Amino acid sequence: MYSVTVRDHMMIAHSLRGEVFGPAQSLHGATYVVDVEFRRTELGADGIVVDIGLASSVVRSVLGEMNYRNLDEEEAFAGRNTTTEALARTVFDRVSAAIRGGDLGPEGNTIVSLRVTLHESHIAAASFDAPV
Amino acid sequence: MYSVTVRDHMMIAHSLRGEVFGPAQSLHGATYVVDVEFRRTELGADGIVVDIGLASSVVRSVLGEMNYRNLDEEEAFAGRNTTTEALARTVFDRVSAAIRGGDLGPEGNTIVSLRVTLHESHIAAASFDAPV
Amino acid sequence: MYSVTVRDHMMIAHSLRGEVFGPAQSLHGATYVVDVEFRRTELGADGIVVDIGLASSVVRSVLGEMNYRNLDEEEAFAGRNTTTEALARTVFDRVSAAIRGGDLGPEGNTIVSLRVTLHESHIAAASFDAPV
Amino acid sequence: MYSVTVRDHMMIAHSLRGEVFGPAQSLHGATYVVDVEFRRTELGADGIVVDIGLASSVVRSVLGEMNYRNLDEEEAFAGRNTTTEALARTVFDRVSAAIRGGDLGPEGNTIVSLRVTLHESHIAAASFDAPV
Amino acid sequence: MYSVTVRDHMMIAHSLRGEVFGPAQSLHGATYVVDVEFRRTELGADGIVVDIGLASSVVRSVLGEMNYRNLDEEEAFAGRNTTTEALARTVFDRVSAAIRGGDLGPEGNTIVSLRVTLHESHIAAASFDAPV
Amino acid sequence: MYSVTVRDHMMIAHSLRGEVFGPAQSLHGATYVVDVEFRRTELGADGIVVDIGLASSVVRSVLGEMNYRNLDEEEAFAGRNTTTEALARTVFDRVSAAIRGGDLGPEGNTIVSLRVTLHESHIAAASFDAPV
Repeated sequence: MYSVTVRDHMMIAHSLRGEVFGPAQSLHGATYVVDVEFRRTELGADGIVVDIGLASSVVRSVLGEMNYRNLDEEEAFAGRNTTTEALARTVFDRVSAAIRGGDLGPEGNTIVSLRVTLHESHIAAASFDAPV
Repeated sequence: MYSVTVRDHMMIAHSLRGEVFGPAQSLHGATYVVDVEFRRTELGADGIVVDIGLASSVVRSVLGEMNYRNLDEEEAFAGRNTTTEALARTVFDRVSAAIRGGDLGPEGNTIVSLRVTLHESHIAAASFDAPV
Repeated sequence: MYSVTVRDHMMIAHSLRGEVFGPAQSLHGATYVVDVEFRRTELGADGIVVDIGLASSVVRSVLGEMNYRNLDEEEAFAGRNTTTEALARTVFDRVSAAIRGGDLGPEGNTIVSLRVTLHESHIAAASFDAPV
Repeated sequence: MYSVTVRDHMMIAHSLRGEVFGPAQSLHGATYVVDVEFRRTELGADGIVVDIGLASSVVRSVLGEMNYRNLDEEEAFAGRNTTTEALARTVFDRVSAAIRGGDLGPEGNTIVSLRVTLHESHIAAASFDAPV
Repeated sequence: MYSVTVRDHMMIAHSLRGEVFGPAQSLHGATYVVDVEFRRTELGADGIVVDIGLASSVVRSVLGEMNYRNLDEEEAFAGRNTTTEALARTVFDRVSAAIRGGDLGPEGNTIVSLRVTLHESHIAAASFDAPV
Repeated sequence: MYSVTVRDHMMIAHSLRGEVFGPAQSLHGATYVVDVEFRRTELGADGIVVDIGLASSVVRSVLGEMNYRNLDEEEAFAGRNTTTEALARTVFDRVSAAIRGGDLGPEGNTIVSLRVTLHESHIAAASFDAPV
């Protein structure tokens, strides 16, 4: 399996509901350094998994919808906890949708799976990894 | 698949038996920066893979049994080489046992696999990855 | 000059006032990975710059006053922008006060200067560096 | 599954053919920081996946064939784009061949798969992962 | 002293003249991960060292003049070795000129010094640090 | 000021005397990832601070005298604590002596200062910085 990984980041505010979150139940925030890995079984004619320029644009666009926001006020997350795990899934879903929508060009159809990792600090991260 | 990864470290002394180890047959030591990845197929009600506070405590507790020790004098390792690979397995076994013992709470039962990585320097690491 | 550096982090929400901040004028947040470097001209009797356990506790305590908070609602920052630069200064001031208050023990008096660095992402950081 | 990962690097010049590469169609270059992960289902008698000294030598030797070269002038790459993905595959093929040739000693036969990752910057990487 | 540091990168080809460079006398290349630290004695009215958006643009623009190039064919470097040290100086000179030219806005006049670091691999870097 | 930094590492066992060290009074160990920064006011004819090959060899040789050792049994450290700070000084002293002894070639005379940093984990480091 081949893969290409691009890194970007977003800075958001949010709070988490549930006793398990302790002090994180208060409104606070995070920088998520985000790695998105695109996987493909064979390389295309140009010798690439994906046009890395398009891939970076898609990731930037997906993160841009959350960057500099208070996620507690975003309709997309109403009634749901925006945990690092859940946000990894959100980024996965939105990048997958962009691929299906053609944003990586026709070669996007050959992407078989993605791994999205959100690093929330130097000691903690969460990932979601699945077929597109 | 969802995952959460927590990082901690331990500082140990040891020696390794076997010509393959060259100068590492002498008593020396290592800092192991340890990543433990907990994996689960679906998120729980709170939107998490695991209570990260409990996960960090379990990892700290497991590493605490080795931290600041000379592993050559630990009964648990009598007759065995404490290579980075073997220690990754030891951390895996002990974190798995803690999970089965309920230390991650009832949700611990939903953890399907772990990946334990020990970074011994900026240029070398070892992992053990298996179902719990 | 000798120095010891310890790393910890905090996760906060805030907004910034001023056109220069563009979208960061909205309520958002950040993880700050914080390095505090303690400097001293000579080592003490034990061969250390500072008791690293005490130093880590002081840093954790200082960050704990901001961690998991919305800084827009903290009186300490009323009327001031909590930029990364300004927060580096705040951490510096509070660690310095802790040192003067004896929290690093009598050897704390020998600390001549601190450098506080807040990493807000993989591509941006701010520091404040000055005598204690 | 057990694994051991070693890191090394190479510095090369090249150009890429195809409009998708934009300005990278010009002759430019890259430092590739290379991670090679060796995987094995069980540890050998010494408690290791592989003799890490031999593994590092094999990786250094494979990278040495490309290091400080202009890949556009290397016969091995004639008519092919030396993308990061393609180079990950080349490193994989050559390390695999070295293993089959006995360069990791008899235990090399127990290596089941490799993952080769080339980091081309702080924000982009490519991997090839397959059975030996 | 306050500082803000931004990170970006460039990918270049070049060769170095002189026996001291050994195999690096051949045409090869490098990814330089570049950190530019901007220093100032006091914060401005907004609580910042510099508009980080402008600072990032200036750095990107300076690196853009070298990115994806063969430096052996750039007039600016005719007759000079483009060592990592020399390139750190080049980036310094060009960022300094941009500051003096007003590209950081009027506040740019308050920048007292810069430190430019080029990381050429995970084990080597060069810096130039001087007043603007 | 120009500088070049090279990175290497060593793996040692030791124990520390003094109540301040708590559990580190027991025999344990550490991996020290070591950065040595060489500084010079002007570049030489080749456009370099120092022959990086020689610099790396000097650092490797100095670390080699401690690597894979139990520092408690080394005469050089008899009666002294081998704290991270003290070891940073030892590396500094030995690299300085090598420079004065000509191991960096005649250009070594132009090195004005060194900064030696030992990273003992992902959250702690110590440095010694002084004129050669």
